[in-house]
Amino acid sequence: MSASETRIPVTLIPGDGIGPECVSAARRIVEAAGAPIDWEEAEAGADVFRKGIASGVPQETMDSIARTRVALKGPLETPVGFGEKSANVTLRKLFETYANVRPVREMPGVVTPYSGRGVDLVMVRENVEDLYAGIEYMQTPSVAQALKLISVKGSEKISRFAFEYARSEGRTSVACATKANIMKFSEGTLKRVFEQVAPDYPEIDSWHVIVDNCAHQLVKRPEQFEVICTTNMNGDILSDLSSALVGGLGYAPSANIGNEVAIFEAVHGSAPKYAGKNVINPTAVILSSVLMLRYLGRFEEAAAIEHAIFVTLESGVLTGDVLGYDRGTPTTDYTDAIIGNLGKRTEGWAIREVKPLQLPVLSAAPDYVRPDSRFVVGLDVFVESPLTADELGASLTELAHGTRMELKMISSRGTKVYPPTGAMTESGDHFRCRFIIRENPGDLWDEDVHQLLARISRRHTWMHIEKLQEFDGDLGFTRDQG
Amino acid sequence: MSASETRIPVTLIPGDGIGPECVSAARRIVEAAGAPIDWEEAEAGADVFRKGIASGVPQETMDSIARTRVALKGPLETPVGFGEKSANVTLRKLFETYANVRPVREMPGVVTPYSGRGVDLVMVRENVEDLYAGIEYMQTPSVAQALKLISVKGSEKISRFAFEYARSEGRTSVACATKANIMKFSEGTLKRVFEQVAPDYPEIDSWHVIVDNCAHQLVKRPEQFEVICTTNMNGDILSDLSSALVGGLGYAPSANIGNEVAIFEAVHGSAPKYAGKNVINPTAVILSSVLMLRYLGRFEEAAAIEHAIFVTLESGVLTGDVLGYDRGTPTTDYTDAIIGNLGKRTEGWAIREVKPLQLPVLSAAPDYVRPDSRFVVGLDVFVESPLTADELGASLTELAHGTRMELKMISSRGTKVYPPTGAMTESGDHFRCRFIIRENPGDLWDEDVHQLLARISRRHTWMHIEKLQEFDGDLGFTRDQG
Repeated sequence: MSASETRIPVTLIPGDGIGPECVSAARRIVEAAGAPIDWEEAEAGADVFRKGIASGVPQETMDSIARTRVALKGPLETPVGFGEKSANVTLRKLFETYANVRPVREMPGVVTPYSGRGVDLVMVRENVEDLYAGIEYMQTPSVAQALKLISVKGSEKISRFAFEYARSEGRTSVACATKANIMKFSEGTLKRVFEQVAPDYPEIDSWHVIVDNCAHQLVKRPEQFEVICTTNMNGDILSDLSSALVGGLGYAPSANIGNEVAIFEAVHGSAPKYAGKNVINPTAVILSSVLMLRYLGRFEEAAAIEHAIFVTLESGVLTGDVLGYDRGTPTTDYTDAIIGNLGKRTEGWAIREVKPLQLPVLSAAPDYVRPDSRFVVGLDVFVESPLTADELGASLTELAHGTRMELKMISSRGTKVYPPTGAMTESGDHFRCRFIIRENPGDLWDEDVHQLLARISRRHTWMHIEKLQEFDGDLGFTRDQG
Repeated sequence: MSASETRIPVTLIPGDGIGPECVSAARRIVEAAGAPIDWEEAEAGADVFRKGIASGVPQETMDSIARTRVALKGPLETPVGFGEKSANVTLRKLFETYANVRPVREMPGVVTPYSGRGVDLVMVRENVEDLYAGIEYMQTPSVAQALKLISVKGSEKISRFAFEYARSEGRTSVACATKANIMKFSEGTLKRVFEQVAPDYPEIDSWHVIVDNCAHQLVKRPEQFEVICTTNMNGDILSDLSSALVGGLGYAPSANIGNEVAIFEAVHGSAPKYAGKNVINPTAVILSSVLMLRYLGRFEEAAAIEHAIFVTLESGVLTGDVLGYDRGTPTTDYTDAIIGNLGKRTEGWAIREVKPLQLPVLSAAPDYVRPDSRFVVGLDVFVESPLTADELGASLTELAHGTRMELKMISSRGTKVYPPTGAMTESGDHFRCRFIIRENPGDLWDEDVHQLLARISRRHTWMHIEKLQEFDGDLGFTRDQG
């Protein structure tokens, strides 16, 4: 390293529990490998929550990341009784790190039922949208609702990212895992967009797999996958599933990558019961720092560290999570062993040659899709009522007289209950009441909506309204089951 | 079987693709075992969709199930271009079969990486609610929304069912898998209710596991689980994951059980490419018929068939899905072998002694939870706008002047963007604008809501509204990230 070499600032967040030990191991190894990093230590997590900062992330830490644009962090805890939201999720969202990257690879010496099969895949998970938006309402005293939001733009970003990531690692296939067969709009958006952008990456095979089948296939034949692109909640489950294929969270690094900022962290938690005992496995954070070095263009140091980790594991130096905590190599000795192996090369295991990652560049226009025609054709009014579906149907039909809309149907949790179908659905007090414009074709105005709402308010309690829209002649809402 | 024995009517739906072969095998075995079933054959699936019946289920089939209350069915297809919804899901919902039961057990001769570990668990999945309600909206031309609905009553039903099912099989533990840490209202409802009802089953150990960790643990140490109780979408993924632990969908039976009706079916699809070739593995439907016989109280015939299946597999008679389709035993020969083994008992494998299942009985009151106090304290208005968050915030603040509410914040996909936080969130055209009542404490009336909406309508396009409620002093809505 020459003295004139440009130094790279990185925000370093030790975090909670075993975090400081993991982060310290990674820092020592990165420095020993000669990467020109200037660390800016910053706080987040349990102590910050306890100071009364509801996000768990102080302004100085935000400022540091906004300046360095790169963070390496340990796990953060949300102490019981402080804050409602996860500080880990907050950091991902505030810096719009839309891509969560979780490589899963068989490691030498870490024996699992899959050992010898060469599991080596990367989960690319959308990191900002979906149920992780955390938008929830009690609709009635006994019915909860969470919103699952998926955008075309978010789907295009994560799809292109997955293909670009595959390219950077020289991988030849990308699978897209969704539940589009049940949720054709939300999950279907990722499927459609993925299939639209795939032809831009002609050298990469791609296909769609239903998410439950993906989970099945990951257990049955994980070696068939190279890169899997998926939505946030699915990805949460699939990536934790996958990390178990190769021996657990001790070997599961991750990157959260956005247009501006990237945050590298282990997947595991803060494991307070092992904290400070010099027994934990720091590999996940060390591998996260390898991802970081590649993101920063430091391919040589990254490869040197990866080789050294593999050489160390091949030599049988393993931590307590693998060997048992009474027999494992202490964390600091394990770290020293990796540092001692810098410069050696593994013979038994291939270390991937990685090229710079090209982040996709998309239009910044807020209206990402512009339809030629659009109409409001109805209204779903969610009503809390002790009435039966028949009674409610009769009442709402009457109230809609003289308005531009008529009651089309009532459903309970997606199953049609009015007009009667003979179904045995148990309705409860939560009904969705669908009103459709009487003229066809037609377009509703807000005055029409206000008129109908005012009438419904006379007799019934509503808590949620959705306009029913048509874009370019396509219905923007689903029909009912039954 | 005496001639005077009461005959039991069962609706038999052969279904599509390989369905008729599977169902025929099960029927022959059930009859050979001497169970006094009268089959009512009924139609559903592809041909029905093609006749223009949008649900895929004709009225006669509905009537048959309503009469017999029990159905055994093969897989149903929704042909491309016909119908929007799955006929399988429709049947489950129309008959309110709220509990999906999926046993997963290691089978003799079916070799997997987990062989010899004694995997033997049952996934109990809520079957009606959740994202499977299939309620979706395009909120803007580029933002899709699905509703995840979870009720207290639905959660109590599935929780109690899981414990009762464990009891009936003499199992000693039930785990509840949710994502309550991210979705404290929706997923949190199942967790809370599960923990509330657990003390009613003091002989059964119970605990909660975060769903992603559950997926991880199922791969790492599946033998730790006996019964897992979970929400619909999670259960979809976890149960398909689990079936792969024991060799795939060919051995994965399922039951859909409600207060009135129970439907038994394999988990696998219609696999049209194998249809009519006498090569498929009918075990999943046969095991489904075993579940059915136990549900009907025919414990002896059920045990006899289960023994015969195990004896057959132990003898090395295996189908093409396990041995390769060129070497497998033909479907009819496999069926004959099982029939030939009726009366024999497996020595190497324990066949569970099952007691009658007690379905939980819950109040039928529509208002399942009655709070002592409730207030409407604000409004979330979802707006489509090309403005920046700052511009929109200024405009909405002004419009709310003179109303009983004030603008509190704006978020984009759950991340706060107004008042400004310094976040790098990419907003798009979809904003959630939160208005809160100015008086504290206070209660909003629909007139207040209509007034604010009318003002917003002057300048902005909204497509979705949620009332913000408080029940018994608890906020019925989540705060924002960041």
